[in-house]
Amino acid sequence: MSAQTFRQRIYALVEVPPDETGKAKFDAFDVFIAMLIVLSVAANILASVPSIEARFGQTLSVFELAAAYIFAVEYLLRLWSCIENPRFAHPVKGRLRFIFSPMAIIDLLAFAPSLVPFWSVDLMVLRACRLLRIIRVLKLGRYSRAMTTLGNVLHSRRAELAVMGFVMLVVLIIASSPMYYIEHERQPETFGSIPDAMWWAVITLTTIGYGDVYPKTGLGKVIGGVVALCGIGIVALPTAIIAQGFAEALKPKHQRQCPHCGKETHE
Amino acid sequence: MSAQTFRQRIYALVEVPPDETGKAKFDAFDVFIAMLIVLSVAANILASVPSIEARFGQTLSVFELAAAYIFAVEYLLRLWSCIENPRFAHPVKGRLRFIFSPMAIIDLLAFAPSLVPFWSVDLMVLRACRLLRIIRVLKLGRYSRAMTTLGNVLHSRRAELAVMGFVMLVVLIIASSPMYYIEHERQPETFGSIPDAMWWAVITLTTIGYGDVYPKTGLGKVIGGVVALCGIGIVALPTAIIAQGFAEALKPKHQRQCPHCGKETHE
Amino acid sequence: MSAQTFRQRIYALVEVPPDETGKAKFDAFDVFIAMLIVLSVAANILASVPSIEARFGQTLSVFELAAAYIFAVEYLLRLWSCIENPRFAHPVKGRLRFIFSPMAIIDLLAFAPSLVPFWSVDLMVLRACRLLRIIRVLKLGRYSRAMTTLGNVLHSRRAELAVMGFVMLVVLIIASSPMYYIEHERQPETFGSIPDAMWWAVITLTTIGYGDVYPKTGLGKVIGGVVALCGIGIVALPTAIIAQGFAEALKPKHQRQCPHCGKETHE
Amino acid sequence: MSAQTFRQRIYALVEVPPDETGKAKFDAFDVFIAMLIVLSVAANILASVPSIEARFGQTLSVFELAAAYIFAVEYLLRLWSCIENPRFAHPVKGRLRFIFSPMAIIDLLAFAPSLVPFWSVDLMVLRACRLLRIIRVLKLGRYSRAMTTLGNVLHSRRAELAVMGFVMLVVLIIASSPMYYIEHERQPETFGSIPDAMWWAVITLTTIGYGDVYPKTGLGKVIGGVVALCGIGIVALPTAIIAQGFAEALKPKHQRQCPHCGKETHE
Repeated sequence: MSAQTFRQRIYALVEVPPDETGKAKFDAFDVFIAMLIVLSVAANILASVPSIEARFGQTLSVFELAAAYIFAVEYLLRLWSCIENPRFAHPVKGRLRFIFSPMAIIDLLAFAPSLVPFWSVDLMVLRACRLLRIIRVLKLGRYSRAMTTLGNVLHSRRAELAVMGFVMLVVLIIASSPMYYIEHERQPETFGSIPDAMWWAVITLTTIGYGDVYPKTGLGKVIGGVVALCGIGIVALPTAIIAQGFAEALKPKHQRQCPHCGKETHE
Repeated sequence: MSAQTFRQRIYALVEVPPDETGKAKFDAFDVFIAMLIVLSVAANILASVPSIEARFGQTLSVFELAAAYIFAVEYLLRLWSCIENPRFAHPVKGRLRFIFSPMAIIDLLAFAPSLVPFWSVDLMVLRACRLLRIIRVLKLGRYSRAMTTLGNVLHSRRAELAVMGFVMLVVLIIASSPMYYIEHERQPETFGSIPDAMWWAVITLTTIGYGDVYPKTGLGKVIGGVVALCGIGIVALPTAIIAQGFAEALKPKHQRQCPHCGKETHE
Repeated sequence: MSAQTFRQRIYALVEVPPDETGKAKFDAFDVFIAMLIVLSVAANILASVPSIEARFGQTLSVFELAAAYIFAVEYLLRLWSCIENPRFAHPVKGRLRFIFSPMAIIDLLAFAPSLVPFWSVDLMVLRACRLLRIIRVLKLGRYSRAMTTLGNVLHSRRAELAVMGFVMLVVLIIASSPMYYIEHERQPETFGSIPDAMWWAVITLTTIGYGDVYPKTGLGKVIGGVVALCGIGIVALPTAIIAQGFAEALKPKHQRQCPHCGKETHE
Repeated sequence: MSAQTFRQRIYALVEVPPDETGKAKFDAFDVFIAMLIVLSVAANILASVPSIEARFGQTLSVFELAAAYIFAVEYLLRLWSCIENPRFAHPVKGRLRFIFSPMAIIDLLAFAPSLVPFWSVDLMVLRACRLLRIIRVLKLGRYSRAMTTLGNVLHSRRAELAVMGFVMLVVLIIASSPMYYIEHERQPETFGSIPDAMWWAVITLTTIGYGDVYPKTGLGKVIGGVVALCGIGIVALPTAIIAQGFAEALKPKHQRQCPHCGKETHE
């Protein structure tokens, strides 16, 4: 540890190695990058407000560009030093594997759109690229145990969630088709097709209920009421699954012990 | 197994026998039918969009008809070979019992409306029949463990759910009657009768709140607020019951046992 | 049992004695009364629909009156025979105590308004009395284990629920007061007073969100968003408490046993 | 106890020392103060209603002033006698520490604005000060075990809640940014900036759904529906965490132990 190479030092600087207890040790550099992410995301949000853009647009653009360059340098340093990590040990293949790891792709997408000139591309692409800058906020995931925990829960329950997603789609189709046939005549605009009725079903079954689409015929209200009372339970299931998984993950260790033999029982 | 009759081979082809572990083995035929269900449901949904109907209506109709014929052939094959199943062993009585089993009825309703000519029936019946095609999506249930699990949960909790359905109905009546008497004078259109007020109660107690019906008098707002704060808990009970049952059903058996001493650790 | 007095037979007829297992035995008379309650509640609901009232008003009135007389006779029989019950054994005091028991008051209110002539009272009182007829539906509680269970849960958790009701009131006041001061100037109609703002708070914190009252100023939206994200958790607590209590009450007996000594642990 | 100094007696009067069992003993003085808080909060709410202000404004103002003087006297008595409490034992430093304790700050803010003359300040400050009077309701916390319990739960789960707050913020940003780019062109007013889109995201993910902001383009509805179905589960997590913590905290200790063998039966 004393006789570290320069690359080892850089690696230790840019990577946050999670220790066994899950508590990552952050040095000044990590705090600086995290702050810069928060500030540049805030800058991107503020720049979308016309009155702020009019007054501080220039400043925000400069700050945006500076942040992008710093993220680019950080990305290159991480790419260069990643071979210190046993997972990416091979100089060429390891680095290629690093480039295509999800976190590195997010990192690249978070600064690249700010540095590429967009004179020749059309407005829609430009916007999509600006949008990508916002995903910088996902870089914070590396510094946040909460997001790691949530990611683990979503990963460990992915089978159940996929299954519920499929059930939800079936419920949406079963709920929206009759509604389309019932309400189409009375409201040809709002219930113009089954996809339109599916928008109604999503907004109803999630209990959002904006009020832009709702049944107006007597039969439609009866069917809609029954769908609401029955379907809400189905659509709320993924929430219950995530909540249960999260509660499990946050439970202190001693509560996961078997009351008979004292050893840990699961997860 | 080696000296299978032709009917036994057909039976093995069209039926998905669930093995003990719950993992059904799908052969190419099952995958083909499942894909065809998804595609024909998608076609039915798309055909309801006027702009798509105008351009691809002809193609979608032909596809629809082809799919219906394939489902019809599959239905006949299953009807013919079902007597290989001990449950439907008798050549006549067994097949009759098969015809009236819920899954077979869904299968029949999923293709029949597409094959019967509707020149002489009126528009409403035609629509209802078209609607029936969508229930094809329920055929997927045979291929989806998620839907089987959900079906089992709903079945095993049917007593509680029936009971809660009854309580919910009582709460709806108790909540909507005073609202009708309070709001009727101020809003004779929206609160025109107790059934109208029940529509308000359903949309309020499920927390959907479209905004088409809500109390406008002072007293109505007070009663409505109290009903909302108290009634939501009651209406959310079935969701909690389903969620708990589902969580239970998805828990792998080994998680309910201590891996060290083998005893069950919690319900 | 053979040598029952007439009063004992009547008592056995009109009362549904809950046996130890919680399964009440219903005789033909009980089923008749339960059906009559359902039908007369349905009649009251239908009579509020103008088009039905216009066509079947006469019939519904006659049915209503007949049902009320039957409920009156049942009430008198129960009052007369109640002294067979050890709780109400004393001929005078016991019957008085019976009259003022909650169930008997509901019974009385369920038929009395239909029999008293209302020529001299004003419209509002008449309506309130008609409303009382609907509470007949609560009489069904005697025949429904679900409502008994729910009643027990609400009773056993009354301390927690009272406490949460108080917390909810505090949250409502804390949430609505700043909103009033912020939005009053911009929307003097909808946010005309703190009680108006409390209506907003109730509809927001229960996530109903009709859309009749919502913040329009920038600051109001920020405060409203924070209130929504934080307050919803508080307001959802009673639901969670009821759901947990209900799940507990419905749990089969063997799951309430101590894993160490096998005896029942609670409730 | 017999030879109490005057200050000791005052201290016993104004403070509600929580005993070990959590049951605080209230004397007549405590009840009087609690009643006065409820009444003065009610008076402040009522005074915001124009019609009540017009008729009873004078009376309410006098009552408000009287209440404020009583709270001031109570505050001074508590400040004077607080040094009987070992935590604030030092005559000067202890009292200073008492002044800056959260409860004492709430107490001060609850009466001070009513006593300071506001002739010279502008309207906005005056309103903010009036608003502060409402926080008097928080003083009730001292008398309510429910609010203490809730406070403890929020405190013990603060790590999880902070973490979820952060995740929620990330979800809000990730959900609102694409919506802004998609809907901005079609609805330049409602989706005028990313902060505007964040208002949509908050109202959607909490399932409030006022109906003032919702997607109108086809792509916006698809993205909005996916965001709704996925995001609701994330935003509901804090509620689940609080509910679980509250259920835990309210469970009497003996229910967590087997009454027969004394061991704890479940977490």
